[in-house]
Amino acid sequence: MVSETVELRGHIIDSLILPKVLDEIMTLGGTFEILHLTVGQRREDASRAEVRVTAPDAQRLDAILGRIGQHGAVPLAGDEARLVPADVDGVFPDGFYCSSHFETWIKRHGQWVAVERPEMDCGIRFDPATGRASTVPMHRVRRGDRIVVGHAGVKVAPIDRSPERNVFEFMASNVSSEKPKAVVIREMAAHIKTARAAGGKVLVVAGPAVIHTGAGGHLERVIAAGYVQVLFAGNALAAHDIEQAFYGTSLGMSLEAGMPVDEGHEHHLRAINTIRRAGGIRQAVEQGILKRGIMHACVVHGVDYVLAGSIRDDGPLPDVITDMVTAQDAMREKIRGVTVGIMIASTLHSIATGNILPASVKLICVDINPAVVTKLADRGSFQAMGLVTDVEPFLRALAEHLVPVNGR
Amino acid sequence: MVSETVELRGHIIDSLILPKVLDEIMTLGGTFEILHLTVGQRREDASRAEVRVTAPDAQRLDAILGRIGQHGAVPLAGDEARLVPADVDGVFPDGFYCSSHFETWIKRHGQWVAVERPEMDCGIRFDPATGRASTVPMHRVRRGDRIVVGHAGVKVAPIDRSPERNVFEFMASNVSSEKPKAVVIREMAAHIKTARAAGGKVLVVAGPAVIHTGAGGHLERVIAAGYVQVLFAGNALAAHDIEQAFYGTSLGMSLEAGMPVDEGHEHHLRAINTIRRAGGIRQAVEQGILKRGIMHACVVHGVDYVLAGSIRDDGPLPDVITDMVTAQDAMREKIRGVTVGIMIASTLHSIATGNILPASVKLICVDINPAVVTKLADRGSFQAMGLVTDVEPFLRALAEHLVPVNGR
Amino acid sequence: MVSETVELRGHIIDSLILPKVLDEIMTLGGTFEILHLTVGQRREDASRAEVRVTAPDAQRLDAILGRIGQHGAVPLAGDEARLVPADVDGVFPDGFYCSSHFETWIKRHGQWVAVERPEMDCGIRFDPATGRASTVPMHRVRRGDRIVVGHAGVKVAPIDRSPERNVFEFMASNVSSEKPKAVVIREMAAHIKTARAAGGKVLVVAGPAVIHTGAGGHLERVIAAGYVQVLFAGNALAAHDIEQAFYGTSLGMSLEAGMPVDEGHEHHLRAINTIRRAGGIRQAVEQGILKRGIMHACVVHGVDYVLAGSIRDDGPLPDVITDMVTAQDAMREKIRGVTVGIMIASTLHSIATGNILPASVKLICVDINPAVVTKLADRGSFQAMGLVTDVEPFLRALAEHLVPVNGR
Amino acid sequence: MVSETVELRGHIIDSLILPKVLDEIMTLGGTFEILHLTVGQRREDASRAEVRVTAPDAQRLDAILGRIGQHGAVPLAGDEARLVPADVDGVFPDGFYCSSHFETWIKRHGQWVAVERPEMDCGIRFDPATGRASTVPMHRVRRGDRIVVGHAGVKVAPIDRSPERNVFEFMASNVSSEKPKAVVIREMAAHIKTARAAGGKVLVVAGPAVIHTGAGGHLERVIAAGYVQVLFAGNALAAHDIEQAFYGTSLGMSLEAGMPVDEGHEHHLRAINTIRRAGGIRQAVEQGILKRGIMHACVVHGVDYVLAGSIRDDGPLPDVITDMVTAQDAMREKIRGVTVGIMIASTLHSIATGNILPASVKLICVDINPAVVTKLADRGSFQAMGLVTDVEPFLRALAEHLVPVNGR
Repeated sequence: MVSETVELRGHIIDSLILPKVLDEIMTLGGTFEILHLTVGQRREDASRAEVRVTAPDAQRLDAILGRIGQHGAVPLAGDEARLVPADVDGVFPDGFYCSSHFETWIKRHGQWVAVERPEMDCGIRFDPATGRASTVPMHRVRRGDRIVVGHAGVKVAPIDRSPERNVFEFMASNVSSEKPKAVVIREMAAHIKTARAAGGKVLVVAGPAVIHTGAGGHLERVIAAGYVQVLFAGNALAAHDIEQAFYGTSLGMSLEAGMPVDEGHEHHLRAINTIRRAGGIRQAVEQGILKRGIMHACVVHGVDYVLAGSIRDDGPLPDVITDMVTAQDAMREKIRGVTVGIMIASTLHSIATGNILPASVKLICVDINPAVVTKLADRGSFQAMGLVTDVEPFLRALAEHLVPVNGR
Repeated sequence: MVSETVELRGHIIDSLILPKVLDEIMTLGGTFEILHLTVGQRREDASRAEVRVTAPDAQRLDAILGRIGQHGAVPLAGDEARLVPADVDGVFPDGFYCSSHFETWIKRHGQWVAVERPEMDCGIRFDPATGRASTVPMHRVRRGDRIVVGHAGVKVAPIDRSPERNVFEFMASNVSSEKPKAVVIREMAAHIKTARAAGGKVLVVAGPAVIHTGAGGHLERVIAAGYVQVLFAGNALAAHDIEQAFYGTSLGMSLEAGMPVDEGHEHHLRAINTIRRAGGIRQAVEQGILKRGIMHACVVHGVDYVLAGSIRDDGPLPDVITDMVTAQDAMREKIRGVTVGIMIASTLHSIATGNILPASVKLICVDINPAVVTKLADRGSFQAMGLVTDVEPFLRALAEHLVPVNGR
Repeated sequence: MVSETVELRGHIIDSLILPKVLDEIMTLGGTFEILHLTVGQRREDASRAEVRVTAPDAQRLDAILGRIGQHGAVPLAGDEARLVPADVDGVFPDGFYCSSHFETWIKRHGQWVAVERPEMDCGIRFDPATGRASTVPMHRVRRGDRIVVGHAGVKVAPIDRSPERNVFEFMASNVSSEKPKAVVIREMAAHIKTARAAGGKVLVVAGPAVIHTGAGGHLERVIAAGYVQVLFAGNALAAHDIEQAFYGTSLGMSLEAGMPVDEGHEHHLRAINTIRRAGGIRQAVEQGILKRGIMHACVVHGVDYVLAGSIRDDGPLPDVITDMVTAQDAMREKIRGVTVGIMIASTLHSIATGNILPASVKLICVDINPAVVTKLADRGSFQAMGLVTDVEPFLRALAEHLVPVNGR
Repeated sequence: MVSETVELRGHIIDSLILPKVLDEIMTLGGTFEILHLTVGQRREDASRAEVRVTAPDAQRLDAILGRIGQHGAVPLAGDEARLVPADVDGVFPDGFYCSSHFETWIKRHGQWVAVERPEMDCGIRFDPATGRASTVPMHRVRRGDRIVVGHAGVKVAPIDRSPERNVFEFMASNVSSEKPKAVVIREMAAHIKTARAAGGKVLVVAGPAVIHTGAGGHLERVIAAGYVQVLFAGNALAAHDIEQAFYGTSLGMSLEAGMPVDEGHEHHLRAINTIRRAGGIRQAVEQGILKRGIMHACVVHGVDYVLAGSIRDDGPLPDVITDMVTAQDAMREKIRGVTVGIMIASTLHSIATGNILPASVKLICVDINPAVVTKLADRGSFQAMGLVTDVEPFLRALAEHLVPVNGR
């Protein structure tokens, strides 16, 4: 039997961190002993625990330490982080430390060095020249990069529940379509305003249902009012938006009449063909071909957008990044400065975005399918809020709160 | 091999009736020969077909005739309807004719007698004294009643697609959450106004999600404006509505704050207890205890309601009919004169209502779960429209169309 | 500001009880101070906490104490339980204590008296003559009954997480269709065998999809082998089972050929009519009319069944209890001695059953719809396991584990 | 008002083609007159109709002809197909004919020339040098290519319902989880055997749930027995399969124990890293690193696989094609000779595959989510069968039919 003593600090009881750590230890076949526990007496006080973890062998102990480290448990006998140079481009050394999306530090020469750009499922690269550490995705590691190996000398700060109850914490706990949503949307709008006032960027990830349900105009209004700085989507959202701008239809349905119109489905391909002829979305706007819609608003109002391809795309539009590794890296660039993300009716792009966002970004996930909301809002933090509702009335209500029509 | 020749009349090609009949014949192991076919040349013209049906034996032929009879195929060599007296209370004679929800006639003494109160899954009772026929549910048949047996002498009129395209026909064909719903709700509101102007009654079947999502006030407004004559619901809708009227909560959630409040869940039981003490909902209104909400509006505005119990009820409220056979019969009485039915977020009561409504009633089925909408809107007629959307914004938009706030 | 000090005992950290209590206090607007906390050092050790709860006024404090009492928090200054006689039949006194499904005690003359038949959403009745306390549903309270009012003198024991990890705890935590289910079904079968060996009864709640998917034979096999003592279902399950026994079809689909057959849908009504003529299911078995199927197996093997009606029933079968209050009471009688409940493809009857079962009964909830499983398995205890899977292969695998075909 | 007369041939009544054509004419604002109608008297006889279509203007008439042309309606006054050279690489001429997935011909010099490689949403390119026509996706058109413009001179053959009822036609009509699936899987297996015996290739499109649910071994068995020639999947399926081969886990769940194991989630990334180090899947097999699983079986048994990337991929594996346009083209090559496609628990790759497959390929679509099955099986032909069921028991049963364990 081997043991190691770890420390936990923060709102570890109220935020369920201590119970989760004890649970993980047992689930992975270890046992624990709580050596010290100082509990914050009031809700604003932090607590501190020392827990001795025991496991049958060193390998298992290491596995447990790795897992509970993700919840912020740091070995008291804190070794230095171990660095191993990569021997092949695009490949980590064996035993590389696998990052979480929480704030992380590594210990070098007795100092805790913050890891830049927290992102889950990456490695951690330390640059001896600058003394700085940052996450690195697998495909970007280069031969000779110093990569953290093992769990020693790595510290993670999971996100505490805030002392004040807020709508994020409440909503995250319970995904259901049977909720009074009007109030929640009002809170969301207030939060977006606050985030903008503080200089944070707002990221929207949107699927084509935004257009099909007739909600494109609401999003356009929100963009025009300056509430969106970054847009992530796929070929489909942009193509349907442009189809609607050209023909007033989406997938061949007239959004005005609610009925199918002539040549409906083909409009989609013809719209893409027209943009290809123009050379791209921005060019189509500049040539006066594209005069309205979400993509038009993005060009006119300077919204940074990434359109990432997928294997099911028609066309695609010239603006679509068809290589997935390039697209991911483009998204990684654009998320800098984002403090609020709104994911609307988009599973694929929302999951991709969730994978690269730090845990500190507040997320609002909206879909009519509860399974999608559950998957997106389950971030292991108190920063994500899920809402099971219909896209059009959601965006209508959000737009009305952010940009009241009658100028209130 | 045995054969019989049947006739079909109406918009049998455009309304898919002829193809369906041919399909059923083949599916059930028969063969067909189209002896004559006169096709209406323009969409307003009716068509007529004579089809010889052949089957391996008389039993199978009879089965085929029974099935295609539901689509309006009538044997040319039209026998009289065969009547057999019931020998036990609550039990049909063997081989009883199983009714559909379409308009139906039986042949007696060479005359086609219309069957009153079309309802599916009933028998047909003929009263020799009055010469009238009507459907009768199994539990209400009495010894000696003359019940139609076999398919001979029974004629059914399935509902043609109307020559004009309308929103019912379009929406029914394709249940999806990805639709421009604002337009459809506008059409629904227009249809409800037309139906009321023509003197038809409007029936609402509603589940408790109406309250949980904060949509109770919208329905209350629609009731107060005279757009609802009949309400079918369960104990849950009424109890949550009354809980909200008393405490401002639904299942312990404050509809104002969108957060749980003290003693939340218990409010539900306490509200029921209070109404039981008063003696019932009407009594609570009269005693000044219940002052707002859907049930209050029903009492004040003379809406006929049936609250049918279910095995999962708490309490229940004194107004709830706890015996299911009694409750079904009460619902059968109240649907007379109903020409539009709106089913909102209620599976159990909506299916029960659908089972007793004639096919001619226009149905609007709204739920956030597409599987529920598919099940409810699949009525084998062109009279049902399904909408996959969220309850609160649906009722908000419907109320706004029917009873604009600013008096437009 | 008013305060009260409460005590918590047990695995209050590992089972998340303490964090939940602190969370509830804050959510309901109170503050807390942890006065003492003794933490069990190893997982088999219990812990103990004293927490001072403070609220702005007495009403809010009482609300908080009520809510956290459900998690086992007992005021240290333990008053006696307060008893108030009911003044009307079927109505509780104002402020009645609303029961949970956990083990509960009330304090009388300084002694903790266990409450018999734990059931949620009931009142607690104390009989001074015998000194015994038991839950009582609202409709069964009689004038003069002594009913507990307020939260003082009431103690609840929420169910701890067991020191050993087991499949119930693991599965309950995460409902998903993407799981290796073969292993889980094997564990379920082992648990059922253990429960039977210990003399516990097994309750099955089943919906008609058991028959439609062709799984009736598997359940029949499990019943015949003595693994089911109680069956709760509705008219539909029994009617479709009997339809299949008579005609080999379910809703008109041949279960052998997987295709619709002649007169399909009508078989359902004819099967019900035949049983009505016989006088009931048992009579039909005794008269040699009903020779196979689930209901036949129940009669032959002495399984206690309750068929509870619903507003959507056809017929119904004579065995169906059509009055919901009577049916609930019948179910309350039959659950005595049940230690395992298996809920299969049945929402309405499963929720109704969940409402009356004590929290100590282990529940296995199986449905192809994740939303149903989430709703059923969310019991606030560690005793329920949800499985999102298809009914037929689930019952096939369960039957194979319990009653191997080749006599293993 | 302008008119044109069209001809329809085949099982146009039984296969609902004539009613659909009349419906489209009316929906798009035209009127019709049936000039001649010869109905096949028996089910094996074809029918023929001449329909005059009238519309308010030439543009609308053209739209109607375009739409009903997709159902096989050919203008009697058959012009030549009109060819226009592309003026820009990757862009079609305006008004290009948008292809369907049905068999198609174009008229050149009075002859009907079959269009090679039917695929929906492409253009049609005619090569004057060879006199051959084929579909061409938008991105592959090159300046100077002769592209069909307008609907004149294009003929489409929609797929008739077969005179014999079969399981494809029956299942396609009605997606529901409440079906007797054992029989249907038996029919599927028989169909796959027949297709292989006739020399057709079988394509499997599979999502990662195949691994998560523990069904990998079943698919491996089916591959080893020679029943799969082509596999389309994403990075996730392959990575989870390889994770399981290396660690016995999938997403960190032990498939043996049904419980999470140490370092669970990280296994996924480590498995990818290991394959990257080896240089690819085939290399890992050859180096003896990868010894079992689906991908191993594909390498060993010569299955052609395409792993197409997505924006949410980790890694990815070196075999993954990260450029979407390249991946689509790779898939287009591999589908040649495929006569049966099986899509299992994969939405994105299945839709992508459905978009490039000709309508004549028989499709089997399996998912636990009914919405996915509806979307995939809705191909406008009678060649697709949807099954709502759980992946593991589906593949277990399919493997048992195709490759019985005990050598039957």
